[in-house]
Amino acid sequence: MTVVELIEEKRDGGELEADEIRWLISAYTADEVPDYQMAALLMAIYQHGLTPDELAVWVESMLHSGDTLDFGDIDKPKIDKHSTGGVGDKVSIALVPMVAACGLAIPMISGRGLGHTGGTLDKLEAIPGFRTQVDPSEYKHLLKTVGMVMGGQTETLVPADRRLYALRDVTGTVPSIPLISSSIMSKKLAEDVDGLVLDVKVGRGAFMRDLDDARSLAETMVGIGKRHDTRTVALLTAMDEPLGTAVGNANETAECIELLRGDAPPDITEITYRLGEEMLVLGGLAPSHSEARALLEDAVTSGKALDKFAEAIVAQDGDPRVLEDLSVLPQPPEFVEFDAKEDGFITQCHAGSIGMAAVRLGAGRLQKEDEIDPSVGIWVFAKEGERIERNQPLARVGWREGARLGAALEELENAWKIGPEPPSAKPLILGEVR
Amino acid sequence: MTVVELIEEKRDGGELEADEIRWLISAYTADEVPDYQMAALLMAIYQHGLTPDELAVWVESMLHSGDTLDFGDIDKPKIDKHSTGGVGDKVSIALVPMVAACGLAIPMISGRGLGHTGGTLDKLEAIPGFRTQVDPSEYKHLLKTVGMVMGGQTETLVPADRRLYALRDVTGTVPSIPLISSSIMSKKLAEDVDGLVLDVKVGRGAFMRDLDDARSLAETMVGIGKRHDTRTVALLTAMDEPLGTAVGNANETAECIELLRGDAPPDITEITYRLGEEMLVLGGLAPSHSEARALLEDAVTSGKALDKFAEAIVAQDGDPRVLEDLSVLPQPPEFVEFDAKEDGFITQCHAGSIGMAAVRLGAGRLQKEDEIDPSVGIWVFAKEGERIERNQPLARVGWREGARLGAALEELENAWKIGPEPPSAKPLILGEVR
Repeated sequence: MTVVELIEEKRDGGELEADEIRWLISAYTADEVPDYQMAALLMAIYQHGLTPDELAVWVESMLHSGDTLDFGDIDKPKIDKHSTGGVGDKVSIALVPMVAACGLAIPMISGRGLGHTGGTLDKLEAIPGFRTQVDPSEYKHLLKTVGMVMGGQTETLVPADRRLYALRDVTGTVPSIPLISSSIMSKKLAEDVDGLVLDVKVGRGAFMRDLDDARSLAETMVGIGKRHDTRTVALLTAMDEPLGTAVGNANETAECIELLRGDAPPDITEITYRLGEEMLVLGGLAPSHSEARALLEDAVTSGKALDKFAEAIVAQDGDPRVLEDLSVLPQPPEFVEFDAKEDGFITQCHAGSIGMAAVRLGAGRLQKEDEIDPSVGIWVFAKEGERIERNQPLARVGWREGARLGAALEELENAWKIGPEPPSAKPLILGEVR
Repeated sequence: MTVVELIEEKRDGGELEADEIRWLISAYTADEVPDYQMAALLMAIYQHGLTPDELAVWVESMLHSGDTLDFGDIDKPKIDKHSTGGVGDKVSIALVPMVAACGLAIPMISGRGLGHTGGTLDKLEAIPGFRTQVDPSEYKHLLKTVGMVMGGQTETLVPADRRLYALRDVTGTVPSIPLISSSIMSKKLAEDVDGLVLDVKVGRGAFMRDLDDARSLAETMVGIGKRHDTRTVALLTAMDEPLGTAVGNANETAECIELLRGDAPPDITEITYRLGEEMLVLGGLAPSHSEARALLEDAVTSGKALDKFAEAIVAQDGDPRVLEDLSVLPQPPEFVEFDAKEDGFITQCHAGSIGMAAVRLGAGRLQKEDEIDPSVGIWVFAKEGERIERNQPLARVGWREGARLGAALEELENAWKIGPEPPSAKPLILGEVR
């Protein structure tokens, strides 16, 4: 068995043996298979996919390419949530303290923003002092004492994914359902969770534009979870317009704090509660969605969710005064309003364009090594279906001298469309796979 | 324009722009595009092919990735021939002196054997002293004075092909019609020839097993030749059984000398003459195939072809006594006969198996760095359709202590099939594309 033979097998639409996949992933991680051979194989997988059997072994091999976490002695149900990424998708930052306050343990390993979608780590780091680097033993300690952790991927966890992801990024092999699924699921399964809730975003501001593709991705990931005895549920949710009002970093964290105070826009509130319900039911803390909803509402109204967030911020060296006073968060030095040019109904509020506008301002990265500015961002005032008048603000832009304001405003020019009739209402939750 | 965008374009079945291809080939040759990106692109090309426009620019970019030869001041018609490779395909070694004796100039750049097919350079080097390394200025000098050169590829000629070929070899992207065509044609067009005759082999011992694939390869290459104003003709010829009797190196060279004496098996003689006719007609030295045939027959019977070969051998430092005395060539120290196990008609004489048996003996390479033994080889006595009796020899095996004789004999076990009825006769020339 040579690497070339494996490439040829996949190239011709064949199926790789379990042993072949195990050997390949382990040899690639150990630097014994060169990038150029893996690149050719990834392109062949892009074209022909992986069978369910191949995919199961592929995920298992990635999962075991490094250390895995072990939370066996934590008696709370360990449930995590993952989103495939969207614009204004700050859900985790409010959701994790809410469900932790209800009694779940959440060992959430998060990522950074790349391209037009943001990343939880960048948003959390807007809180002064907040430290997202957490090593495996501290993960365990925080999970035991606080019941939640939100940190970055460690060096030793799923090293195969780090190498494969970097290679996919430069070889045009990112948007492949088996490769996306195995990347997400190997990392989540390495967290030793009992259950997993997936938020698969669909629409103009998401990675998946098409509902059928998104459903196929969701089914593939739920299938992987099942084969690894991890209860997995996926919601398919709309990502045509940004979630909530804030798009950026500090402003998104601020909106999460408002959500924990019971005072956030309806779309981001609703999706956070829906995902929370799934987590509590999966974890066995509520027998039904309505009872789960009641627990979540109580966690917010009683202040327990906000207290849990305070505890987590302190545990990760952040400044908890942010929960009392949002001005502790970095503020953009300059503001400009972006106004409607005509009267009418908003028929499009394009998440992708608004996300790119935020990136131009410095809120996101075009290259992995770019630094972000946590203070800048966009406040979206007008969403689809709303009535707007000429010269009313569609958005407020928080910016800093030296950033590419012109390029950001140009993106915004294409974001909104205004028409004489309101568009038909679109649901927020488009489907579920369980 | 980034490399990733080019890969994505091709991955999704799109067409690359001329400028994009030119930039890519030039940047890859200059080491500015890494192998892993080119590997992903090659796999995408393997899957989606190249359009005629893309292919034309691809070939042109490869051709201009290094120096090209310039034989503008040579007034003979410059015609070359290329074979896609087969077992016992020693045609060039007899053909080139024959057509050179008729007045063509042939600047033939040849290759080495890899896998089950042999290479002209290895066979020529069986002649004591024969030097296949020829630099561009010597190429020109020999072409002027002798009218023929047979040497290896120089470092500066089509460097893009050297890099791409090495990468294709280890990434499962060799058997792609546009990639094969561009590799062959860029090298041949760099030779500054007026015309080119291609021998596209089809069958069990060839790269192309299927006549339709072979025709498509031939049409693609003839199309490239036309677009570069080089008259190109392709013959599709059978490669189910070995050509002639000898499979090896020294024994194949010996068979070519016999051919130049008018004393070689009919299949190898016929195909050599057919290709020679095409070359003479292309070069304008004969108005018709029958007149070309007469010129070639005269070159052999008059001894002019053999004299031309003597002249070429001397010019490239070889020992011309080989033409008088075949025992000047290296001889295998040991011989063993491989006998038929039953009476009947030969229904299969498998070129691929016989080629691999010769490789096992040391006549060929499995890896580029393997050294070959010029003396060893196989003499094939029984071809398809012939009647054979039990214990009559099917072949004679010339071998050397230390080589893998057992593995070679095992390959030969599968080479012949004997049945009660003769198989239907198969033509040697299966088609032509012009």
